[in-house]
Amino acid sequence: MENILYAIPALGLAALLYTFIRSAWVTKQPAGNERMTEIARHISDGAMAFLKAEYKVLFYFVIIASLFLGYLGYSGGERSHWSIVIAFIIGAVFSATAGFIGMRIATKANVRTAEAARTSLSRALDVSFAGGSVMGMGVAGLAVLGLGSLFIVLYYYFVQSTGADVNGIQMERALEVLTGFSLGAESIALFARVGGGIYTKAADVGADLVGKVEAGIPEDDPRNPATIADNVGDNVGDVAGMGADLFGSYVATILATMVLGREVIAQDNFGGLSPVILPMLIAGLGIIFSLIGMLFIRVKEGGDVQAALNRGNWISVFLTAVGAYFVIHWMLPEQMNLRNFDFSANDVFLAVMVGLVVGTLMSIITEYYTAMGKGPVNSIVQQSSTGHATNIIAGLAVGMHSTVLPIIVLAAGIVFSYAAAGLYGVAIAAAGMMATTAMQLAIDAFGPIADNAGGIAEMSELPKEVRGRTDILDAVGNTTAATGKGFAIASAALTSLALFAAFVGIAGIDSIDLYKAPVLAGLFIGAMIPFIFSALAIAAVGRAAMAMVHEVRRQFREIPGIMEGTGKPEYEKCVAISTKAAIREMMLPGAIALIVPLIVGFGLKGVFKETPSAEILGGLLAGVTVSGVLMAMFQSNAGGAWDNAKKSFEKGVMINGVMEYKGSEPHKASVTGDTVGDPFKDTSGPSMNILIKLMSIVSLVIAPHIATERTPAIPEEPKLTPEEVKVTPAAEKTINAENTVTVAGIAAK
Amino acid sequence: MENILYAIPALGLAALLYTFIRSAWVTKQPAGNERMTEIARHISDGAMAFLKAEYKVLFYFVIIASLFLGYLGYSGGERSHWSIVIAFIIGAVFSATAGFIGMRIATKANVRTAEAARTSLSRALDVSFAGGSVMGMGVAGLAVLGLGSLFIVLYYYFVQSTGADVNGIQMERALEVLTGFSLGAESIALFARVGGGIYTKAADVGADLVGKVEAGIPEDDPRNPATIADNVGDNVGDVAGMGADLFGSYVATILATMVLGREVIAQDNFGGLSPVILPMLIAGLGIIFSLIGMLFIRVKEGGDVQAALNRGNWISVFLTAVGAYFVIHWMLPEQMNLRNFDFSANDVFLAVMVGLVVGTLMSIITEYYTAMGKGPVNSIVQQSSTGHATNIIAGLAVGMHSTVLPIIVLAAGIVFSYAAAGLYGVAIAAAGMMATTAMQLAIDAFGPIADNAGGIAEMSELPKEVRGRTDILDAVGNTTAATGKGFAIASAALTSLALFAAFVGIAGIDSIDLYKAPVLAGLFIGAMIPFIFSALAIAAVGRAAMAMVHEVRRQFREIPGIMEGTGKPEYEKCVAISTKAAIREMMLPGAIALIVPLIVGFGLKGVFKETPSAEILGGLLAGVTVSGVLMAMFQSNAGGAWDNAKKSFEKGVMINGVMEYKGSEPHKASVTGDTVGDPFKDTSGPSMNILIKLMSIVSLVIAPHIATERTPAIPEEPKLTPEEVKVTPAAEKTINAENTVTVAGIAAK
Repeated sequence: MENILYAIPALGLAALLYTFIRSAWVTKQPAGNERMTEIARHISDGAMAFLKAEYKVLFYFVIIASLFLGYLGYSGGERSHWSIVIAFIIGAVFSATAGFIGMRIATKANVRTAEAARTSLSRALDVSFAGGSVMGMGVAGLAVLGLGSLFIVLYYYFVQSTGADVNGIQMERALEVLTGFSLGAESIALFARVGGGIYTKAADVGADLVGKVEAGIPEDDPRNPATIADNVGDNVGDVAGMGADLFGSYVATILATMVLGREVIAQDNFGGLSPVILPMLIAGLGIIFSLIGMLFIRVKEGGDVQAALNRGNWISVFLTAVGAYFVIHWMLPEQMNLRNFDFSANDVFLAVMVGLVVGTLMSIITEYYTAMGKGPVNSIVQQSSTGHATNIIAGLAVGMHSTVLPIIVLAAGIVFSYAAAGLYGVAIAAAGMMATTAMQLAIDAFGPIADNAGGIAEMSELPKEVRGRTDILDAVGNTTAATGKGFAIASAALTSLALFAAFVGIAGIDSIDLYKAPVLAGLFIGAMIPFIFSALAIAAVGRAAMAMVHEVRRQFREIPGIMEGTGKPEYEKCVAISTKAAIREMMLPGAIALIVPLIVGFGLKGVFKETPSAEILGGLLAGVTVSGVLMAMFQSNAGGAWDNAKKSFEKGVMINGVMEYKGSEPHKASVTGDTVGDPFKDTSGPSMNILIKLMSIVSLVIAPHIATERTPAIPEEPKLTPEEVKVTPAAEKTINAENTVTVAGIAAK
Repeated sequence: MENILYAIPALGLAALLYTFIRSAWVTKQPAGNERMTEIARHISDGAMAFLKAEYKVLFYFVIIASLFLGYLGYSGGERSHWSIVIAFIIGAVFSATAGFIGMRIATKANVRTAEAARTSLSRALDVSFAGGSVMGMGVAGLAVLGLGSLFIVLYYYFVQSTGADVNGIQMERALEVLTGFSLGAESIALFARVGGGIYTKAADVGADLVGKVEAGIPEDDPRNPATIADNVGDNVGDVAGMGADLFGSYVATILATMVLGREVIAQDNFGGLSPVILPMLIAGLGIIFSLIGMLFIRVKEGGDVQAALNRGNWISVFLTAVGAYFVIHWMLPEQMNLRNFDFSANDVFLAVMVGLVVGTLMSIITEYYTAMGKGPVNSIVQQSSTGHATNIIAGLAVGMHSTVLPIIVLAAGIVFSYAAAGLYGVAIAAAGMMATTAMQLAIDAFGPIADNAGGIAEMSELPKEVRGRTDILDAVGNTTAATGKGFAIASAALTSLALFAAFVGIAGIDSIDLYKAPVLAGLFIGAMIPFIFSALAIAAVGRAAMAMVHEVRRQFREIPGIMEGTGKPEYEKCVAISTKAAIREMMLPGAIALIVPLIVGFGLKGVFKETPSAEILGGLLAGVTVSGVLMAMFQSNAGGAWDNAKKSFEKGVMINGVMEYKGSEPHKASVTGDTVGDPFKDTSGPSMNILIKLMSIVSLVIAPHIATERTPAIPEEPKLTPEEVKVTPAAEKTINAENTVTVAGIAAK
């Protein structure tokens, strides 16, 4: 068994080795002429300045959170341990590193992609996708390395060295400490996503409003003082923010499956540990399969970039499915049981399939609602003919409409994965879906790199065909960004449910009953949080964009010769506005996500005699998850659809028998929609994912401390078969509902 | 006891008598010159044409629904009865009548208010408020008359004549049949609200887009072919739609409290019936107190209209509180018990107080978020300076932000009213809040009447001071519309919870456990429904508005002399567009609300062995309620705030040190926001209220038919004290949680 345990961090290291080699290859590529390198340096400096400012604030946050966690771990008795602080700090550092790696490579790959696009589309794809793959492999590698090695240490310290049972309290304690790693990762992710999202959209909206609308100069025009900030934003928001987001999801999914896996009663050849190790191993294998898939992503001049990406993606998904089949049947025994739900190895495999299907369907549905030429986007295009207002109304309707099918798919996914393998099935479905994260992220991150390359080409006044090639990549990038968001939302939703299930187990409650008034009140409060969170994020973008507009207007007014190209814009002033706004405005939403579970969990402990605070917190989490998933889809898809409605005018669209192009009145209306959609799809929408996961993780971390009574679902004695398990109240309920046993005896406290 | 029973319909009749007298008084007022009466006739004809078209469709709906209900009632055994069809039809007819009365008086009062405004503000208020009070009293009177007299018939037929126990199955059956009345009322309300909402906003948006924006002619200009449709819309949407909405809420609230009241074990002087009769009696008294409050609504020329309305409202709320105190203590015994929750008469009074406080707070908070000169509206005004997009972003942020405090108030209301008197407390809190519905509706309905009066004054080219006086009334009407919406949402939320509680009891489930996968999936599906519902409603408005725009453009192009005022616009074509669109587009959303509970309740019956379909339906209802309440607040408040941000420019606002007025660029941006907000605040937002209530009522109607096993919470033997109640599984759980008894014996099925 030790071999398997050590194989996991080794797979993580392999991914990091790839990252290192591939990163060196990108760096070696030619970086273009002096003008290009100068612009690239501006962007890179701006991005690093933001990361530095952000990490400084996060440093203080980590210290404060560590003190709190240390106290919690120290005072929590046998179910927690102070070393959770170390896991937390490692998680935070790893997450920050993942963001740093992504940002670093993206700011190198952008200019080199522009230079490569002078030669051919094929080379431009090579460079930009190499950049994306460094990001993807870096994130996956750090996650698997971090989780795998921390688990080994914790397992030996808490379980192996004490000779404790692998289903027992010491193992629970080891995993509780490991939850700290996930908490560190996810809280950094929240700030990175929100901060990066505010940064990028403040710059984007500000640059567009004055540049395109007022001054009538094209996007990425070097005369626009906000243009560097806009390009920096692509890196800090779309690359670093997304990297941190998926790093957090990836870790949280694996962790939630491990926590539930501990409770699985399995007589296997791994000392009962197979359900705990399996999710890490699937993730590790996913890295290898992603790598193989990446080899197939190549394109000839004039070739279909989207098809190449799809091919690579399908190969890695297919290999993961096959690989999962063999690994599951090799590791897991024929019969397992979790909280009185019986299931087999094959059931677990079916659950993984459910996860892969859900992830794929979500991507397809998202693409339908946001792709050019399809019904939803066309409805926005048509309604742009009657002005700004009808464009907005149409986009909002599309966003709301786009929640229907994904929610049905998700609900079906919950029911089917649960039917296959109980709560472990729900968790492993999420883990299966996330296995190819490295590939998804590579595909996702290449888009902003290509976008940036186009910007650099524009600003350096490179020949038109260069911009033409980067535009092809950018257009594909817009689609992958939309499908990537669908994937991210689906994974966040399943992850949250897995965390939710883990929380219920650790908190010692056996139901979350909406029939109880405080639980219902918790559901209401929870469902409201995504609204206030979105409101804060959107309002922050609005305010910061206004500040940007005023600054750009000032520069246009005060700097002589700026419009003629003889006066030099003060780019750094705009960079500073975005940076400051992002840092300042990310605090409050972040604090809400972190503090609300503490208030409910600790503050309401013992207040309602029939309802433990953990149950109210469970209601709150359900509310956050359900409303967060809906708001994420609504906002992301509305934003994506508005964006592509605007882009449709670039090629020309037929409205009431008349062809309308860029610059027409309907096109202007579509620009308004795109601008409204910007904070929706890149700030508040994707933040929802992290919000729901983070609140679930915080709850999981405090679960042992708010549990009102100790009711372990699994007793301490090792290697019991399901029939021998003692009937606890929780078990009794299920057994009874299954009509298999008649038991009696609920004792008053 | 009989006296009390008969007093209730008598109070309803008194209200209808008032309606009759007051209506005659309004009709007697002078209706102005020929031009005015002609315009008023156009509006009245258009409104009646719509009602006729709508009621024709609803006639077929009622037939189909009756057949289904008849089958259900006939085949449902001892817990239902075919006579539910009759109750349903009466409910539908009463609801339609309430809408008709309101529309009839509103289309009479509008022109008479315009004429009265030639004399004085005081007379204009008298006439317009008289119109509103006819509507309010008509709705309340019909509701109390219908419920009260039906209850008498059903009580005598099912209970008295058979000598059955008032807590028992026959009484349950009587109330099940009475639920049909509520179902009829609420389903007509849904179609009226959605249809009316689509009508009014298609006309409004269409008229504004071509008239104000393209042709540059003022609102209500008689040259605009859509202007009559716009004014018709105020009547069919804001008057008839709202009347049907509050009629439905009012009935549903009383009914839910009665259904829960049946289960209350109370030894009183009314044969145990006091908890059932109480909600009807409070409603009846609320009519009298509303009437008294109305006497105080008078204003002198130059006086404060808002203050006068507030005075009247406060008086009726205060009297209701005092009246409820005495009635509750007179009727209810000192000790009662509902599902093992003990409470006293005074606890019930406290719950009523909670309801009154929640309603008041909701109105105040809503006013803050939507009132001119306050922070939220000002933030939209400021962000209009950078264009359409930032105006929209600001409005969306305000709307989302505005959910926070109301949700906290609502959650606190749930917890406190439950703490006071259990589930009966939650229901009676809603009933207390709704007691002054007649007054609320009078205040609410006077706004559109004044708005219409202003339109008629404009179109008839009356002197400027006339429009000045109607504008004063209209401005107050905008505020009362916003606070009225806060009130309507709060009442819908509490009503739904009361219905939810009643559903749980009838369906024979004792928990709604989110820990079960199908229940969680139900929560997700439920929460999605308000999104698809809103999307359909908003998209319908967008489409219909576009059709209106094209028609108006055509008339401007093809009718010679139309802009010079010599050519006559074809008003009726625009009226026909709105009417057709409204009728066609109200079907699908209405069908979703009605059918989804049937699919889940009947379709999933027995599918999941551990989870009865009623429990999944419970999860679905919780999802619909929580997400519907949030979407209602978000959309209504965003719309209200956008509207008043636009209005702020009419007086002039200071942006960055510059005064901006009507016609400036920021004002144009604010018009876009107002137009987007129109379907939000008048179509989809307020429809949410009915959606959540209707789905709860449908579930309550089918509850006896999907109950998997018969577990009456209250056994058949009469007059048991709580200590003597037999321990059913449901009871056992609660008792055990309260640490009062130790019991045993869960039997396998």
